[in-house]
Amino acid sequence: MTALVRQVTSEFVGTAFLVATVIGSGIMATQLTDDVALQLLANSLITGAVLVALILTLQPVSAAFNPVVTAVDAVLGGTPWRNVPPLAVAQIAGGTVGAIAANLMFELDAVSISTHDRSSSGLWLGEVVATLGLVLVIFGAIRSGRTDTIAYAVGGYITAAYWFTSSTSFANPAVTIARMFSNTFAGIAPASVPAFLGMQVVGAALAVVLVRAIFSSTNSEELSREGALQR
Amino acid sequence: MTALVRQVTSEFVGTAFLVATVIGSGIMATQLTDDVALQLLANSLITGAVLVALILTLQPVSAAFNPVVTAVDAVLGGTPWRNVPPLAVAQIAGGTVGAIAANLMFELDAVSISTHDRSSSGLWLGEVVATLGLVLVIFGAIRSGRTDTIAYAVGGYITAAYWFTSSTSFANPAVTIARMFSNTFAGIAPASVPAFLGMQVVGAALAVVLVRAIFSSTNSEELSREGALQR
Amino acid sequence: MTALVRQVTSEFVGTAFLVATVIGSGIMATQLTDDVALQLLANSLITGAVLVALILTLQPVSAAFNPVVTAVDAVLGGTPWRNVPPLAVAQIAGGTVGAIAANLMFELDAVSISTHDRSSSGLWLGEVVATLGLVLVIFGAIRSGRTDTIAYAVGGYITAAYWFTSSTSFANPAVTIARMFSNTFAGIAPASVPAFLGMQVVGAALAVVLVRAIFSSTNSEELSREGALQR
Amino acid sequence: MTALVRQVTSEFVGTAFLVATVIGSGIMATQLTDDVALQLLANSLITGAVLVALILTLQPVSAAFNPVVTAVDAVLGGTPWRNVPPLAVAQIAGGTVGAIAANLMFELDAVSISTHDRSSSGLWLGEVVATLGLVLVIFGAIRSGRTDTIAYAVGGYITAAYWFTSSTSFANPAVTIARMFSNTFAGIAPASVPAFLGMQVVGAALAVVLVRAIFSSTNSEELSREGALQR
Repeated sequence: MTALVRQVTSEFVGTAFLVATVIGSGIMATQLTDDVALQLLANSLITGAVLVALILTLQPVSAAFNPVVTAVDAVLGGTPWRNVPPLAVAQIAGGTVGAIAANLMFELDAVSISTHDRSSSGLWLGEVVATLGLVLVIFGAIRSGRTDTIAYAVGGYITAAYWFTSSTSFANPAVTIARMFSNTFAGIAPASVPAFLGMQVVGAALAVVLVRAIFSSTNSEELSREGALQR
Repeated sequence: MTALVRQVTSEFVGTAFLVATVIGSGIMATQLTDDVALQLLANSLITGAVLVALILTLQPVSAAFNPVVTAVDAVLGGTPWRNVPPLAVAQIAGGTVGAIAANLMFELDAVSISTHDRSSSGLWLGEVVATLGLVLVIFGAIRSGRTDTIAYAVGGYITAAYWFTSSTSFANPAVTIARMFSNTFAGIAPASVPAFLGMQVVGAALAVVLVRAIFSSTNSEELSREGALQR
Repeated sequence: MTALVRQVTSEFVGTAFLVATVIGSGIMATQLTDDVALQLLANSLITGAVLVALILTLQPVSAAFNPVVTAVDAVLGGTPWRNVPPLAVAQIAGGTVGAIAANLMFELDAVSISTHDRSSSGLWLGEVVATLGLVLVIFGAIRSGRTDTIAYAVGGYITAAYWFTSSTSFANPAVTIARMFSNTFAGIAPASVPAFLGMQVVGAALAVVLVRAIFSSTNSEELSREGALQR
Repeated sequence: MTALVRQVTSEFVGTAFLVATVIGSGIMATQLTDDVALQLLANSLITGAVLVALILTLQPVSAAFNPVVTAVDAVLGGTPWRNVPPLAVAQIAGGTVGAIAANLMFELDAVSISTHDRSSSGLWLGEVVATLGLVLVIFGAIRSGRTDTIAYAVGGYITAAYWFTSSTSFANPAVTIARMFSNTFAGIAPASVPAFLGMQVVGAALAVVLVRAIFSSTNSEELSREGALQR
């Protein structure tokens, strides 16, 4: 298969497992306890743990699992722009399949639209901060040639961002869209989605400014040519 | 001793510690709290932690601890087929000894047959997904030459899979069989075992297709010759 | 930009995220549960997780996030003394912005002065021990040439120090000052701050003695010249 | 200073922090919650976290923190026998200072003798298994030349062993002795200590047999000469 087909498959499978984990662990947690802090602790640690596994495994092929990250990589010269649409479609489709898989594993309807309203200025600021930090962590590592530790950095960051942002850190359009399709702990009502996506774009744009301010571009061209996000 | 005897011993000891951890931490958890989410959080984090330790330690000799993983390694050209039966027997025997050790440490009967029924379409789908992901994580890492991080990837994955699959992720025939022998938190009734084993084989078979689709085989032959699962 | 401007920006951004995490995760925890141990467990694990991410990302530029650490680095010949004031100012300013960001994300007043009194001989001893250990961990790693694992060592240490010191381990003047500005779980009353800062200086001074006693200085000069804290 | 003085200082300081963490986090946990599983979860995760930090930091000098581990290293040809007594004394003295520091930080009497009886066949078997596993993890890594990952392997193993052994895994004579001196969560009554020490020696002896059975000694002599425990 061509490299792009492998990358699209990798993004599809990885995002499916990521969303299945976010939603599935949320369902499991709410079935087992009434303590919401314990639910969120499980949800956050488990998401971080699976991100370590998925990025370590799939990064040599393609492991953004996030259209905003793929787009920033194109802006910074890593991913060719023509590859962004197929990768983003794979991420969104994979995320949706992951949501369905989680629902079915817990014997719920394959799809149920979430009624969980997530709309307020605090949550929107949370999404800006969450996405800004995520993009900074990923591309700071790439610019510094530290691509082998991205898995741990992203796992640690996302685990933390569940707790320090009021929004519990979606920070990912593919995951945000997929989380509409499960009316459970991790769900988000469709009406809340557009504002979240907009804030994620704002956070990513701010992060690009910050990455350029903090990290010299000395070796970034070289890294880009090798496709650092694909290791 | 010959290499195979060392490998068989390594699989026996490693699987014994793995099962003793799964069962022992479950017993400890149910003795200490009534909150089932807290029980599962301890059980999952502790299993992930011991897997990091056991794989880091024993991988230079042999650290599959799982007949399905050993069989897939044979399919993909790593382990010679003639070594699969002794390794699988060592895994199953080691797991059983681990179950007995856990029971005895907590001063229960050496063996008690579990009455914990685990049978439903959701659980079966959970086992397919759990095993698919585990095999993908392990052999993706091997195909990419990232064998030094398998311990962290598997530890993270299994911790997560306790929560995102409805079945709490057995994903391992040796562990599944051993968990029959302790009528405690982690137990499984014998009548539920055959379907779990079947689903694990299905998940592993699907994973082989996916590994071949995502990862190019460029350097896999070379890795196989060196026995990547044994580092 | 000059290297110093990049370093100042890195310290500002990193300390802002660190403090936003400490305060934000504390607010989230107290909103979700009444069990104080669960609040502290989340607070501590999440702070450790974000430190792994922030240090992995920013260390190639500058990742002390702590005036005491920057000052010890100057004492031991790493950071030039003339850079200490701008770096410390950036850390304090960044920490304050992080506190404000946390408050705003959770829709509290931008600034509220903490009324949480933290004054007793036990807490003061706690801060001495906490800072001594932190400085030992960081500069032991630098003296041994193990700078690539500082992120994990500091993340592990700070997570632990929340629990084994009675003070929950502030161990950082910039973070201590910033935590005055949020009257929430992680806050500290201004009247309690000076003694904490003094104890942190004492702990750091003791650590310098210990670092010199334990680690030979063979390769420390060489490391200092390369700026080990900036990797 | 001579190398041995540095090593003795390193063992003293490291064991002091280890015991302060075990005891201090136990005190903190019992002060904050009545749920014993949550107390043990905090106690175990925090001990694992500090072990990662302490071993990463002090291993280039000396980081056994455990007389049984130091003795096994002598048996296997690493540490010279004449160094075992001073190192063991440093470990026991450091542990005792750590217990006192924990008591003082929490404003308890500097020393209080524990009344926590820990005596039963299940606990004794637990100590054999716990120590066997710990020694296997450490010396398996050394024999395989994987000394850089010992910190993570030991951190993961000890975190797990709190839960899968009925004894919560002391597995260390210096720590066992020190834990007599704090009548708190982690304490052990003096009358229970001798049997624990005996079981730890039995477990270590069994581990030596197992290490020799599993790991070929090909490169162990070379590693020993370099002092792998001191990196």
